[in-house]
Amino acid sequence: MPETLPPDCVGLVEPRTLHFSDPLPLACGQSLGEYDLVVETYGTLNEEASNAILICHALSGHHHAAGYYSLDDRKPGWWDSCIGPGKPIDTNRFYVVSVNNLGGCHGSTGPNTVNPATGQPYGPDFPVITVRDWVDSQIKLADRLGIQQWAAVVGGSLGGMQALQWAISYPDRLRHSVVIASTPRLTAQNIAFNEVARRAITSDPEFHGGRYYEHNTVPRRGLMLARMIGHITYLSDASMGEKFGRELREQAYQFGYDAEFQVESYLQYQGERFSESFDANTYLLMTRSLDYFDPAYEFNNDLAAALRHAQCEFLVLSFSSDWRFTPARSEELVNAMIAARCRVSYSEIDAPWGHDAFLIPTPRYMDTFSAYMDRVAREIGA
Amino acid sequence: MPETLPPDCVGLVEPRTLHFSDPLPLACGQSLGEYDLVVETYGTLNEEASNAILICHALSGHHHAAGYYSLDDRKPGWWDSCIGPGKPIDTNRFYVVSVNNLGGCHGSTGPNTVNPATGQPYGPDFPVITVRDWVDSQIKLADRLGIQQWAAVVGGSLGGMQALQWAISYPDRLRHSVVIASTPRLTAQNIAFNEVARRAITSDPEFHGGRYYEHNTVPRRGLMLARMIGHITYLSDASMGEKFGRELREQAYQFGYDAEFQVESYLQYQGERFSESFDANTYLLMTRSLDYFDPAYEFNNDLAAALRHAQCEFLVLSFSSDWRFTPARSEELVNAMIAARCRVSYSEIDAPWGHDAFLIPTPRYMDTFSAYMDRVAREIGA
Repeated sequence: MPETLPPDCVGLVEPRTLHFSDPLPLACGQSLGEYDLVVETYGTLNEEASNAILICHALSGHHHAAGYYSLDDRKPGWWDSCIGPGKPIDTNRFYVVSVNNLGGCHGSTGPNTVNPATGQPYGPDFPVITVRDWVDSQIKLADRLGIQQWAAVVGGSLGGMQALQWAISYPDRLRHSVVIASTPRLTAQNIAFNEVARRAITSDPEFHGGRYYEHNTVPRRGLMLARMIGHITYLSDASMGEKFGRELREQAYQFGYDAEFQVESYLQYQGERFSESFDANTYLLMTRSLDYFDPAYEFNNDLAAALRHAQCEFLVLSFSSDWRFTPARSEELVNAMIAARCRVSYSEIDAPWGHDAFLIPTPRYMDTFSAYMDRVAREIGA
Repeated sequence: MPETLPPDCVGLVEPRTLHFSDPLPLACGQSLGEYDLVVETYGTLNEEASNAILICHALSGHHHAAGYYSLDDRKPGWWDSCIGPGKPIDTNRFYVVSVNNLGGCHGSTGPNTVNPATGQPYGPDFPVITVRDWVDSQIKLADRLGIQQWAAVVGGSLGGMQALQWAISYPDRLRHSVVIASTPRLTAQNIAFNEVARRAITSDPEFHGGRYYEHNTVPRRGLMLARMIGHITYLSDASMGEKFGRELREQAYQFGYDAEFQVESYLQYQGERFSESFDANTYLLMTRSLDYFDPAYEFNNDLAAALRHAQCEFLVLSFSSDWRFTPARSEELVNAMIAARCRVSYSEIDAPWGHDAFLIPTPRYMDTFSAYMDRVAREIGA
């Protein structure tokens, strides 16, 4: 909790819920008859509505990207390091829109919200949502907010996939796409980690086929394991080594199976905290959405072909120690962009923090990101 | 199942059980009053008993390293690629001893064998066994077999740790130590993966605090998850990509959470098979033994100091794509050996198969291993 809000913070913020009653057709063949999207906005939309930035969140993210809900909050929004006055996404210049994705568990319609057809939570009946579906829902949001063209769509990890999909699905509706720590498609290893996490959840006896709400329980153990696995893949071997090494909680080995290395209790704590706040069905959905993302798939696995109609300019950023979505994956994407004659800037940021580096304001990252966003602002006179 | 046994196979083999009734003091402070070790041997011990090779197994390994139990066996022992007539560990020249470690679940005394004090399986009362304890039990085995000095102690992964510990604990009892795809100690990331695997097992309601035998059940789901996690870390991103890519079982996405990528069903199959054949308490024990291994620990974290009294010659092999125990870890070990003025040969083998590469007979690996073992044989006139 900050004593007073720092000057480069967007300040106290409030989410709001927008209701959409036009059906949204989905990739799976079903459609959502109506739905809510929860959003936060920071900064002021200019008269031409040309200074809007859409923030797309990652697996466990949500709409609360910056600022505080109250002075009692222990932490600000998840990307407060990058959004605020004078920060890379400068709220003195941009109007920032941050949305909780469909299928999420922070207020937007998802497995833990009520299915109007039954009066019960959707649970396992909530359809699988793809990255393309999210972008289709986000364009309804843009229409609602009167934003004809985003100055930029920005996201890290799964959020970067959405920024990429925007350029493919709605080429004239964004000027810039910022794709950070992302990949044009998951590898077999990425899918494998997701599958273990899902299996941990679905094999928890408290999962009840996804209808745990009706049993007044949650698959806490499975969700905890899923988070622990995920967490390892977000960090690098080196950063875990630097943070924990082989440090023990006690003076010597205990010769038992309770957590006795610091890294063990850290992971357990992270897993437990997550299992108390995140919805298991949403975790399944988000990981499946990651698995399915593959814009080249419909273009005979030719990523350049998928990008042929993109009109926006791209910034692609990767992090040297990210072994989840390695720099090689970003380079694959950049090479396809070049082949498709897209305008693209690319930088691999040297940072030891693994995949999570996209959340950490290292100087080189902030400078690169700020310089690019400054250009975006100047283009639109903001 | 082979139609006939291949000529470079050790043939049909049989395990035997050796009983030891002298107490074995353990690192944890407890001791085992009596215990069994199950072994297989291949080849013939020469008159001087100078041609014996000890094979140390890894996490999920056992004594059945080479040959077949019957012509109906689908597969030979786990290291049949390296042990047999004309193979790197040439059974025409060497007498090979392969042991199931204490705490294992393939016949040697362990959590699933009967505690003579209670008449029930040890279960969670079985003490945690360290690498040093294993080596202490293996020297009793050497004494029993009349082997004053091993021509070589050989192992991959956790087995390599034992080969290394032999050189430290009993310098004059081995001529060569062959440490393959191993590490002088686990990193925080290694420990983290082990912890998630253990947590998957212990949080399975069927675990019953390790007393599942008494409940006529096994923590199948937990063990399956543990194996799936482990399996991912044994393979490389590239080898999983080559083997499975994003290949689907059906023609198109199913938009559900059942296994639909080939890699998912492969992992599930591996996990299920493992959960039917491996003991959960042994899995806990083996991973903990990995965590604890750190010969430098008692030498103020100076690995060279730990190696100062080693007398044997070392071969250290690593594999380029092994991200579990990277070549950098082997180099750390080799540097300490050089600092301690040990004789050491080192090669990083270029192989795409990840940690599992130590089980796969790639030409460069086999040539390097064979050349070294040929020298070992010639030294002793075998």
